[in-house]
Amino acid sequence: MLPQWIIEKKRDGNELSDEEIAFFIQGFTAGSIPDYQMAAFAMAVYFKGMTPRETAALTMEMMLSGETIDPASLPGIKADKHSTGGIGDKTSLILAPLAACCGLTVPMISGRGLGITGGTLDKLESIPGYRTNLSGKEFFQTLENVGCAIIGQTARLAPADKKLYALRDVTGTVPSIPLITASIMSKKLAEGIDTLVLDVKWGKGAFMKTVEQARELAQAMVEVGTHMEKKVRAVITDMNQPLGRAAGNALEVQECLDVLRGGGPDDLKELTVELTAHMLELSNVRKTRAEIFQCLENGEALKKFEAMVAAQGGSTNWIFDEAAIQKPLPAPADGIVSAVDADLIGRGCLILGAGRQKTDDTIDHAVGIAQMKKPGETVKKGEPLAMIFSNDREKTEEALPMFATAFHCVAAPTLTGRPLSLRSGGKSFEFGDRFEPSLLIYEVIG
Amino acid sequence: MLPQWIIEKKRDGNELSDEEIAFFIQGFTAGSIPDYQMAAFAMAVYFKGMTPRETAALTMEMMLSGETIDPASLPGIKADKHSTGGIGDKTSLILAPLAACCGLTVPMISGRGLGITGGTLDKLESIPGYRTNLSGKEFFQTLENVGCAIIGQTARLAPADKKLYALRDVTGTVPSIPLITASIMSKKLAEGIDTLVLDVKWGKGAFMKTVEQARELAQAMVEVGTHMEKKVRAVITDMNQPLGRAAGNALEVQECLDVLRGGGPDDLKELTVELTAHMLELSNVRKTRAEIFQCLENGEALKKFEAMVAAQGGSTNWIFDEAAIQKPLPAPADGIVSAVDADLIGRGCLILGAGRQKTDDTIDHAVGIAQMKKPGETVKKGEPLAMIFSNDREKTEEALPMFATAFHCVAAPTLTGRPLSLRSGGKSFEFGDRFEPSLLIYEVIG
Repeated sequence: MLPQWIIEKKRDGNELSDEEIAFFIQGFTAGSIPDYQMAAFAMAVYFKGMTPRETAALTMEMMLSGETIDPASLPGIKADKHSTGGIGDKTSLILAPLAACCGLTVPMISGRGLGITGGTLDKLESIPGYRTNLSGKEFFQTLENVGCAIIGQTARLAPADKKLYALRDVTGTVPSIPLITASIMSKKLAEGIDTLVLDVKWGKGAFMKTVEQARELAQAMVEVGTHMEKKVRAVITDMNQPLGRAAGNALEVQECLDVLRGGGPDDLKELTVELTAHMLELSNVRKTRAEIFQCLENGEALKKFEAMVAAQGGSTNWIFDEAAIQKPLPAPADGIVSAVDADLIGRGCLILGAGRQKTDDTIDHAVGIAQMKKPGETVKKGEPLAMIFSNDREKTEEALPMFATAFHCVAAPTLTGRPLSLRSGGKSFEFGDRFEPSLLIYEVIG
Repeated sequence: MLPQWIIEKKRDGNELSDEEIAFFIQGFTAGSIPDYQMAAFAMAVYFKGMTPRETAALTMEMMLSGETIDPASLPGIKADKHSTGGIGDKTSLILAPLAACCGLTVPMISGRGLGITGGTLDKLESIPGYRTNLSGKEFFQTLENVGCAIIGQTARLAPADKKLYALRDVTGTVPSIPLITASIMSKKLAEGIDTLVLDVKWGKGAFMKTVEQARELAQAMVEVGTHMEKKVRAVITDMNQPLGRAAGNALEVQECLDVLRGGGPDDLKELTVELTAHMLELSNVRKTRAEIFQCLENGEALKKFEAMVAAQGGSTNWIFDEAAIQKPLPAPADGIVSAVDADLIGRGCLILGAGRQKTDDTIDHAVGIAQMKKPGETVKKGEPLAMIFSNDREKTEEALPMFATAFHCVAAPTLTGRPLSLRSGGKSFEFGDRFEPSLLIYEVIG
């Protein structure tokens, strides 16, 4: 078997055997198949795609390229959630302790942000002392004592993915459904979990710009999970506008604390409860959404979060570095907010230093945007649409026009014309009049 | 400008600017753009193609990656021919001296064989002493004194092509019309010639398996030539069966000597004269095909060939190494040869050692096949269909079934059903009754 034969077979649109995929990924991991052959292969996959069987084999080989976690010794059902990323997406920080309160064990291995989307690890690291690099023993102990832990990917977990991801980034082969699927699923399934809920985001602030692309990715990931005999469900959610009212690392942690104290923005609360509900349902734990919500209102989830942060070395006095410049973004006229462009909010935050342009950039945890008005809310001329947090005057000036352009206002209430249908797995909500019906969740697959 | 932006632009099917192509090829030549980015780029070009303008820019950049020859100081019009390669295709050895006899200067830079197709340099090197690595000064002197010279590509000529070709070979990106076009044309145009005739072969023994593919390549090459203000014409010819009666290096040189002495197989003579006629026509030299043919019959072309070989250090006593095993291939029954499969003949010769499987394989110049019967010729049972020349008993046994399968015979004369039309640039031939009308030439472009 020669690597170029496999490249040619994929190039010509034929289905590769498990053996051929294993040969290619193992050779790539070992270094006997050079980067240039993998680059050509990835581009052929970009154009010709992969069958569910091929994607599952690719995922399996990438997972097996490193060590896998076996949490069988831990109590309860091991469950996790993964989001494809968006602006202000901080659900993991609330969801992990919330799901643990409901009886699940959540061994969450998260990533860092790149480009406009933030990373869970970066957010947690704005808590003084928080360690994302627990040893295997510490990770297991935290899971056993608390029920949840959020750590970073070690070099030993799916090294083939690490290597391939870096290569895809510079060869124009990032936006390929089978390659994205294998990248996400190889790392998540290496956690040894029983059930997995995927939050697949689409829209201006997401990697997938259309709901069709998001659906395709969601289906591919659920199919791979099924192939590998895991319970996997995907929830397709809207990421045209930011989630919650804050974007930027410490600002987002503070918003999570608001939710864990029973307050915070409705969209963030609703999505977190909804994703937790799917995790529980997949894991055969009977809890109504109202019961899940109760854990936020009665402070149980907050206690769990504090226990997790403490176990990972973090301070729970909730004092964060503050930005030197705190500047309101004034509304140009009286009106009603009709839309907030998530992409522009993300790009503004990136300029302020809340994210990374390149993987080795450092992050300023204090900067970002908060107190954002949400669509449907009224503003008077000169009233703040949001507060901008910055540590650099020039960056503030550069980011300001982006934030200003992100907010769309109308003079009088009009229909926004959003084509979203109201669906959430065919189920009606159980919140009573607590929330309006969801406009966030588009579709549930799996 | 980042290399991945250019890869992505091509991946998405957009036309690259001259600056983008220059940036990419110059970076690749200098090593600042690594092989893996070029591999992904080549695969994107495989899928999305290139416009004539892009292909011309690519060709130009690859040509300018090394030194170019300026034969302006040499007398006459500088003309060359390039063939995309086939089994028994030895026309260059006859054509170069023949065109020189007719007044052209032919600075031919040729290649070596890889796979089943032979290489002009390998054939010439079966002449004891023949040097393909003349210095620039020796090359010019030979051209000035003789009118033609055939040498190999130096490392300084189109180095980007050398590097890219090696990469394409192992990344499944060989069969791409724009990449093939740029590869051929960058080297040929670096010769500084005024006119170029391309022999684009199609069929079982050619790289292009269908006439449509050959036409596409021919058109792309002619367009690039036009873009670069050179007179270029492509002749599409049939390579379903071997050209002439011999395949294998020394055996082919001997067949060329037969033609240069006024004998030899009709198809080889006809194609060589025809290609020479196109070269002359493009170069505005008025010669009828009968006049060209005369130079073969009267020994002028042979004298020119001998002068060239002598100038390049070769012996002109025409004594070649002989193969130890010379074995007839007997006809299994009385009949008429209906077809000879060029691919199988080529593969048989490769096994005997006449060609290379890998670029660093060595060649046995003495081995191959000769005295092949041509379609339409009758054989009696047991009479030889051909003679096999080998230096290894095991290889002979391995190659024999391929040669035997290559020959198709029928019991009685039937129509072969070949779909070839009789066309040669819309012109009728001038040979009188010397030849049957050509079945070899399909179409002339440019």
